[in-house]
Amino acid sequence: MNCVFCNIANGVFSSNTVFENENFRVILDIAPANSGHCLILPKKHAENIFEMSDELVKEAFSLAKRTANKLRESGLADGVNILQNNGEVAGQTVGHFHIHVIPRKENDEVTIKAKTYDLEESEAIRVMSLLKEI
Amino acid sequence: MNCVFCNIANGVFSSNTVFENENFRVILDIAPANSGHCLILPKKHAENIFEMSDELVKEAFSLAKRTANKLRESGLADGVNILQNNGEVAGQTVGHFHIHVIPRKENDEVTIKAKTYDLEESEAIRVMSLLKEI
Repeated sequence: MNCVFCNIANGVFSSNTVFENENFRVILDIAPANSGHCLILPKKHAENIFEMSDELVKEAFSLAKRTANKLRESGLADGVNILQNNGEVAGQTVGHFHIHVIPRKENDEVTIKAKTYDLEESEAIRVMSLLKEI
Repeated sequence: MNCVFCNIANGVFSSNTVFENENFRVILDIAPANSGHCLILPKKHAENIFEMSDELVKEAFSLAKRTANKLRESGLADGVNILQNNGEVAGQTVGHFHIHVIPRKENDEVTIKAKTYDLEESEAIRVMSLLKEI
């Protein structure tokens, strides 16, 4: 087990654990964007969502929802970002699937926003032809 | 139905639809961050994840995974961000639950990253006491 998140998820390395069940551990991110920033970690190694079973994906995001609920109920959050990055090009910094559950408050300093552009019809047609049969 | 995403999800307003089933519609975002940026929309109105049933949350993120797979297989993405914002304070701009599936390529101009700080032990203890019993 050279994977740091495998070690944390399975209790070999210590962490600020807020929840644990058979398949997952929910911890506080040691480098939070905001107070209460949690990570959902599967105990079984998967590098990213592409390597996760459909069942574990469902369980992981269901747990993210429960965590988001709790953040709101506890007063730590007025709103919540759920963010899951796949691949270094997407900003994934640890090669073990994880979901960020980020509490948000009015006028906090978190910015999670991408610059956008207007979709042109020609691009829409090209992309839709590539995405047939999802 | 005054909700624009209700109208799009249920086919009243037109959209660039890449997938549709009984409960969801997957469309191209008209203001994409990158080529192939998709939105997962439930047909039944829910303002945010707090109002979604556990079953629909599971189905929605399972569909996000399938969409991410397809983006990668099609060559539109080397990596993928899955982002779901809840509340105006979290950057949610339309009050109807949606998941962003954002394809990423090497050296693209998308930045989805939050500034972070080091978690102190005292904060960890305070937060963990608030998040008991997720």
